[in-house]
Amino acid sequence: MMLTSAPPTLPMPNKSISCCGGTNYGFSQSKPNSAPAINFQAKFFPKENVITSRKQDDDITPAAAAKKIPQHLNCESRKLDGVYDTFGGKLGQGGLVFQQNFSIRSYDLGPNGKATIGCLMERLQETSIQHCRSVGLYAGGFGSTPEMSKRGLVWVLCKLQTVVEKYPSWADVIQIDTWTGASGNNGLFRDWIFRDYSTGEILIRATSLYMMMHMKTRKFSKVTAEITDELRSALMDSDPLIDIKNAKLGRLDIDARNYFQTSVAKPGWSDLDVNQHVSHAKYIDWVFESIPFSVLETHELSSMTLEYRSECQRDSAVQSLTAVARDGTGDSTHNQGVEFDHLLRLETGSKVLRARTVWKPICDGFFSTLKFPATNGCT
Amino acid sequence: MMLTSAPPTLPMPNKSISCCGGTNYGFSQSKPNSAPAINFQAKFFPKENVITSRKQDDDITPAAAAKKIPQHLNCESRKLDGVYDTFGGKLGQGGLVFQQNFSIRSYDLGPNGKATIGCLMERLQETSIQHCRSVGLYAGGFGSTPEMSKRGLVWVLCKLQTVVEKYPSWADVIQIDTWTGASGNNGLFRDWIFRDYSTGEILIRATSLYMMMHMKTRKFSKVTAEITDELRSALMDSDPLIDIKNAKLGRLDIDARNYFQTSVAKPGWSDLDVNQHVSHAKYIDWVFESIPFSVLETHELSSMTLEYRSECQRDSAVQSLTAVARDGTGDSTHNQGVEFDHLLRLETGSKVLRARTVWKPICDGFFSTLKFPATNGCT
Repeated sequence: MMLTSAPPTLPMPNKSISCCGGTNYGFSQSKPNSAPAINFQAKFFPKENVITSRKQDDDITPAAAAKKIPQHLNCESRKLDGVYDTFGGKLGQGGLVFQQNFSIRSYDLGPNGKATIGCLMERLQETSIQHCRSVGLYAGGFGSTPEMSKRGLVWVLCKLQTVVEKYPSWADVIQIDTWTGASGNNGLFRDWIFRDYSTGEILIRATSLYMMMHMKTRKFSKVTAEITDELRSALMDSDPLIDIKNAKLGRLDIDARNYFQTSVAKPGWSDLDVNQHVSHAKYIDWVFESIPFSVLETHELSSMTLEYRSECQRDSAVQSLTAVARDGTGDSTHNQGVEFDHLLRLETGSKVLRARTVWKPICDGFFSTLKFPATNGCT
Repeated sequence: MMLTSAPPTLPMPNKSISCCGGTNYGFSQSKPNSAPAINFQAKFFPKENVITSRKQDDDITPAAAAKKIPQHLNCESRKLDGVYDTFGGKLGQGGLVFQQNFSIRSYDLGPNGKATIGCLMERLQETSIQHCRSVGLYAGGFGSTPEMSKRGLVWVLCKLQTVVEKYPSWADVIQIDTWTGASGNNGLFRDWIFRDYSTGEILIRATSLYMMMHMKTRKFSKVTAEITDELRSALMDSDPLIDIKNAKLGRLDIDARNYFQTSVAKPGWSDLDVNQHVSHAKYIDWVFESIPFSVLETHELSSMTLEYRSECQRDSAVQSLTAVARDGTGDSTHNQGVEFDHLLRLETGSKVLRARTVWKPICDGFFSTLKFPATNGCT
């Protein structure tokens, strides 16, 4: 077991933030919580129980990730001791870890013949809900435990970071392990590891950060004793796979006007999820829409960090902006890929999402032929 | 067994039609094939083998559909005698019927909390490919048998009709049976029945019509003896569930200008499928985009007929148009729903898709409050 001795202070909610029944979003880095009442993580894992502490890595690398994976979930040991439930999921480690397999279908594939990042991110959502359901922490709707539901509270996704080693293909079966843990005062993190079911090879690692918000007031809420008691047995005592709280995002400079942008558009009916908000996977589609096709054709996403700032409803008119953060031309090998900063914003100027994506060339030598078109135009 | 004694003549291809590697589209009703070389259906099921003939119904009704379902697939008998293959599918009746189960995931749900028609139509595609793969008729890519692949031929979806009795919800397991058969001279039909796995209740029936097209010339092709031999053992000797060939579509009168329309837009990267065309499910999304929200909120789709006219590539600028075909106000009960004619067209004016959809009110009494906004404006 280990504990971060001084967890970073969690931010207070942005007033414009609203929720989406457990899958949407709101996050602000601008107003630190000046008076955290209690340390949520310490409540679950009191100091006297801590055996070791461990330095948090600045960012994820395959080696760093392997160190952080709880021992029973490392590359060599991917079998859970639990039993399959009626929905095909499997609980291990006393309910701490949930495991579920998914087949990659023909409709999950993108133009490159691999599963799209959007369809893979949808699996994150499903496994987290199924995990909660399996351990009795699902109260109808997506994102509330029974105690939270009584109080009109939901978990909202604030930040998500994903590192892709390899994309699965059609008919591959992916095995996803997921678990959750306390994050600072009033937050939760959730980790996922995607593996190739047949080989055990790790495909994707991801970590997300959630905070609890009141449905009516749209303000973040502190964790009460009842909710603490309810959650205690479901939380893993570990660091998240990725140090997501400290992951830095570049700032897209709107005034510099050196970005690609889409026209402003409202979501269609099919973009709305069960909470009548725009689904989080659609946000990723919108980010992609302002990336030049010349990049999408020759590169694949290797990592992304998404910071959800406010919800997007059906009347929201949204624009996608992408600026080049690193074009790779300074790399000696010319195959280190490119990085982008992204912004989704409402017509009113409000930020919906900030993101950083990293792309690696699909084939060596491809990258040198990449030409960015003129920026500041609709791609 | 039965055979239509005089199968309707299949149409010749529209010159503007192109293919999509087995999942896209092209169909014209305007130029009948004046000299069909051979009757494809008769080749597989010679007249001397026909025991009975049966009148084709004009359109599907639950009762009519039940009559047409091969006996081993009717409501009372939904268990196949085959064995599960490695991908979770099951073959019965000597490979004639393929059965596969799918769980409805949280990301499959639309704003009304039910599985979307788009996600359900994606399952059609997957089961048809898996069926072909299971019986050795998959040659890589989606839509070619080994003999077709040698000749540069693919099956293209020309028409699809779907009748929905009930939409599944989150965590429901749906069981899909699918089979295929000869359709006239050079076509195939494919049927699907979706059932609630736990109750056996029929949820959806669907039939599609395919023709074979040459990848390079983009022209429809006749079936050769080698392909006949290859397919013979996989074809069910039955009428399709729905008389799709004769299903009539209303004509959206562009000059009348009494329709809803979207602005012209190009597909995004996430709209493209593995064949780098717009996926057929996306066509449905686009159709929905020109239907007023007031309808989508208060009604659910009960049936749709889609006629695919030409492919849509990434550079295609597409507009969606919807005209009211029947507004239901003449119905004595005021709850008989509404019907729309739809057209997806390119900026150049070429037709991509024609469609008819039928919608029933979600709750009695809802319909009388439905108000259509002014037409001919972007919805």
